[in-house]
Amino acid sequence: MGHVRSGTLFLVLFISGLFLNAKSSYWDDREKFIRKEKSRELGADLVLNEKEEKVNEILMNYKLRELDEGMLNPAGYLPAQHFFHSKKAMDKSKVFNLIQKLPKGASLHSHDTGIASEEFLLSLTHKENLYGCERGQNFLLKFFKDNSSLDNSCQWKSLKKMRAQRKDFEEFLRGKLSLVVADPMVKYPDLNSVWRAFINLFRNVGNMIGYKPVFQEYFYQVLKELHEDNVMYMEMRGLLPEVYDLDGKIYSPEEVVGLYVETLEHFKHDYPSFYGAKLIYAPSRHVDNSTVDNYLKILKNIQKLYPDFIAGFDLVGQEDLGKPLSEFIPQLLEIKDQTKFFFHAGETNWEGETDLNLIDAVLLNTTRIGHGYAILKHPEVYRAAKKNRIAIEVSPISNQVLKLVDDLRNHPAAILVADGYPVVICCDDPSFWGAKGLSYDWYYAFMSFGSRDSDLKLLKQLAINSIAYSSLDLVDNSDLLTKWQLSWNTFIDDVLKEHGVMYSKPRSIVDV
Amino acid sequence: MGHVRSGTLFLVLFISGLFLNAKSSYWDDREKFIRKEKSRELGADLVLNEKEEKVNEILMNYKLRELDEGMLNPAGYLPAQHFFHSKKAMDKSKVFNLIQKLPKGASLHSHDTGIASEEFLLSLTHKENLYGCERGQNFLLKFFKDNSSLDNSCQWKSLKKMRAQRKDFEEFLRGKLSLVVADPMVKYPDLNSVWRAFINLFRNVGNMIGYKPVFQEYFYQVLKELHEDNVMYMEMRGLLPEVYDLDGKIYSPEEVVGLYVETLEHFKHDYPSFYGAKLIYAPSRHVDNSTVDNYLKILKNIQKLYPDFIAGFDLVGQEDLGKPLSEFIPQLLEIKDQTKFFFHAGETNWEGETDLNLIDAVLLNTTRIGHGYAILKHPEVYRAAKKNRIAIEVSPISNQVLKLVDDLRNHPAAILVADGYPVVICCDDPSFWGAKGLSYDWYYAFMSFGSRDSDLKLLKQLAINSIAYSSLDLVDNSDLLTKWQLSWNTFIDDVLKEHGVMYSKPRSIVDV
Repeated sequence: MGHVRSGTLFLVLFISGLFLNAKSSYWDDREKFIRKEKSRELGADLVLNEKEEKVNEILMNYKLRELDEGMLNPAGYLPAQHFFHSKKAMDKSKVFNLIQKLPKGASLHSHDTGIASEEFLLSLTHKENLYGCERGQNFLLKFFKDNSSLDNSCQWKSLKKMRAQRKDFEEFLRGKLSLVVADPMVKYPDLNSVWRAFINLFRNVGNMIGYKPVFQEYFYQVLKELHEDNVMYMEMRGLLPEVYDLDGKIYSPEEVVGLYVETLEHFKHDYPSFYGAKLIYAPSRHVDNSTVDNYLKILKNIQKLYPDFIAGFDLVGQEDLGKPLSEFIPQLLEIKDQTKFFFHAGETNWEGETDLNLIDAVLLNTTRIGHGYAILKHPEVYRAAKKNRIAIEVSPISNQVLKLVDDLRNHPAAILVADGYPVVICCDDPSFWGAKGLSYDWYYAFMSFGSRDSDLKLLKQLAINSIAYSSLDLVDNSDLLTKWQLSWNTFIDDVLKEHGVMYSKPRSIVDV
Repeated sequence: MGHVRSGTLFLVLFISGLFLNAKSSYWDDREKFIRKEKSRELGADLVLNEKEEKVNEILMNYKLRELDEGMLNPAGYLPAQHFFHSKKAMDKSKVFNLIQKLPKGASLHSHDTGIASEEFLLSLTHKENLYGCERGQNFLLKFFKDNSSLDNSCQWKSLKKMRAQRKDFEEFLRGKLSLVVADPMVKYPDLNSVWRAFINLFRNVGNMIGYKPVFQEYFYQVLKELHEDNVMYMEMRGLLPEVYDLDGKIYSPEEVVGLYVETLEHFKHDYPSFYGAKLIYAPSRHVDNSTVDNYLKILKNIQKLYPDFIAGFDLVGQEDLGKPLSEFIPQLLEIKDQTKFFFHAGETNWEGETDLNLIDAVLLNTTRIGHGYAILKHPEVYRAAKKNRIAIEVSPISNQVLKLVDDLRNHPAAILVADGYPVVICCDDPSFWGAKGLSYDWYYAFMSFGSRDSDLKLLKQLAINSIAYSSLDLVDNSDLLTKWQLSWNTFIDDVLKEHGVMYSKPRSIVDV
């Protein structure tokens, strides 16, 4: 019996030992699994220094507070709300305030006449010589020398007069300069309708911005607002629109590029810490083959004239309704080796038509992909793009306002970030959704594309990505990165100072 | 000169030849790329026979028509609309009508008291002995022998009387039996609020369905509605609720399983072509450890009593607010080898807390994942789950109504389908969103998870998946698959007949 008992006891001990092992090995396995998974996230490779760790604590304190509030009241969680409703609260968010101050590196995807803030656009409407004209849903704005030189394209009226005559003029004007409305879900029931309104905005402001002095003032302001938002460098998509002066001169595309370069030099002179800007020539995709032939001629000319300023080529406009890249393959192949491509591709909810642009973009060796919203529905494109380190330019607010996604936690970029895909955060057309600079998009990205414990490393990586995936050559790239690193260090110090964290290296025990 | 000329000519020919080669090779590469990508899609491996090809033509004709209408009027596209608004139009859709007739295989994820149609629930409310009671947002329903035997849990009133007294009673009652409202976006502003209403529904109907004769009638009806919707087999998650009779008897969980088995036998006798059903014991996750200990005891008992009927174990309830799997690891490890798991995991928009259930589900070797909505935010879980062929149970309408996603084209299942991940389409709780059977979910899935050219092969694969990833053993699995194949062949013949396609093998030239 004694023998049996001790045998039984041994068996019991052995089995419970096994079981305890099973349990502890479960937690070990789980820990390892989670670590392995987290190591794939964008920014996971970065190591924060002690000061950064302290800033991270401050940041995460704020972030977790906002997340916890969101879990209690999901309807109040900002990334689950339409930007037109969330912006006011965002302005007050501590996370947002930190992001505003953070050196964000580069702005890589925005469109020439949709970038400066709405308030600046409104200020332009007080200029002398500005005329307005209602045409259907549009309210066109244009400068003329005087009443006698008005063109016949529209029934122009002096804006000064309209302003004096119409009581609700400011409100009316606001409605013509941005998409912002009280109930965007009702006003814009689908993607096509919001795009119609969106395109109208470009038409409304196009001729106002096209007036030469305003054109340069506008571009200057674009740079200024980015600079103030702690962005150091910009790559802007530009149509090269018609620019005019009051004497009837129309500037050629080549001259328009010249105006940009002149303004940029002026701005860099005024703000030497701003690194610079480049232009991606990006005319409309709603055109025929011979128009594209003409685009390519212009591209060659401006590349020759301003080799350092021209980053590459793209085609723009609503992808679902515009021409696909496949329409222009011979022309695009022809210039493939003389220019970089930055194609818009996959900015759609549909699968199996518009989104084939993703395949052409990758086959044409695009440098980055604009939006790329549909890329995950194309596993082979994803594989190829990841292998070739083709960054995706994600514009959260744009995708929300232009009706691809409501709750940003459903944005495919959350999956890209979790998988360490090179993402850059962009602002597209902040002008038209009442945003300004890059920070609003960064806030949305930080609060919806990362996990609960995604932290300063993610933000730092997004900044680094924006430089690493820019079209700068190696020398300039490393130069900008160095300058950005200095700003970053200053930012870290500033946050610590502002939060009263006296930074001193922990003294070693030996010192005591 | 002649020499130079012919040399130049040769050079020109050579270069343009190269160029033509580049172009034609571009199109070849593109073709290959698209083929490779399409070959990854769910169902791509299937080869349709000639009859199926003809049915496919009919199906795709209808599908493309609906897609094209959707592209013209995106707000009218059914998968972009809330089910409460799209259902009526869906009933008239030709694609939907085909899907209704299609043998869909198995229904693998639905919950005991949320399956039968709303009209059936309403019909139950006309039974004798039924009493109702308003308590806050709830309207409880329960059977009692007579007025004198009412319990004190509520101020019960005879339903017959209430019906006679209250003019708007039917409308009131409808509001208490489903989530359907005119404006779901306003009524349910976020996930927590819709879940509150949803849980109330289970409470409202729980005691009505718990009355023993009704309990069996209800389960019979569940099977009948699935059978009528061309589903052959079901795996149902069940709480094993309290079942009672008018003499005050409360049935034990083991007896409740007995009632299911008895009803199933009865149903199979009446409808011999129905293959069967199994139960996944799935009690609430909002409990403490000792309650889970009790669950496991019940599980062991019912497994012993009804080994063929019990498929496995799960825990249910709103994941964000309920206990995570990690709370119960010791217990779950203890039964890991004696039962299959079918864990709900990742039914959330949040990242980094609730969704860690996905990691535990995979580490615990779950057989399938319920919902798995967040799986793509966890690349390591995805990799492991794909390697281990863990099917994901996708319930499109549920995910939409319960506020994870609005436009179903944004559902992660579109990515899973494109990548050939084993997906099964489920209905969760059709009762509470005014649906019936599986077809509505299949329609949403077909029209939003596949590409424009995803066709009958996708539908066929979804049906095959539902059988292949069921918990049936190998013999039963192949038996059911054989029976399903016969139904499928009949379906193909019926569609051809109905569409007046006279099918005859193309005669060979020799025969002429």
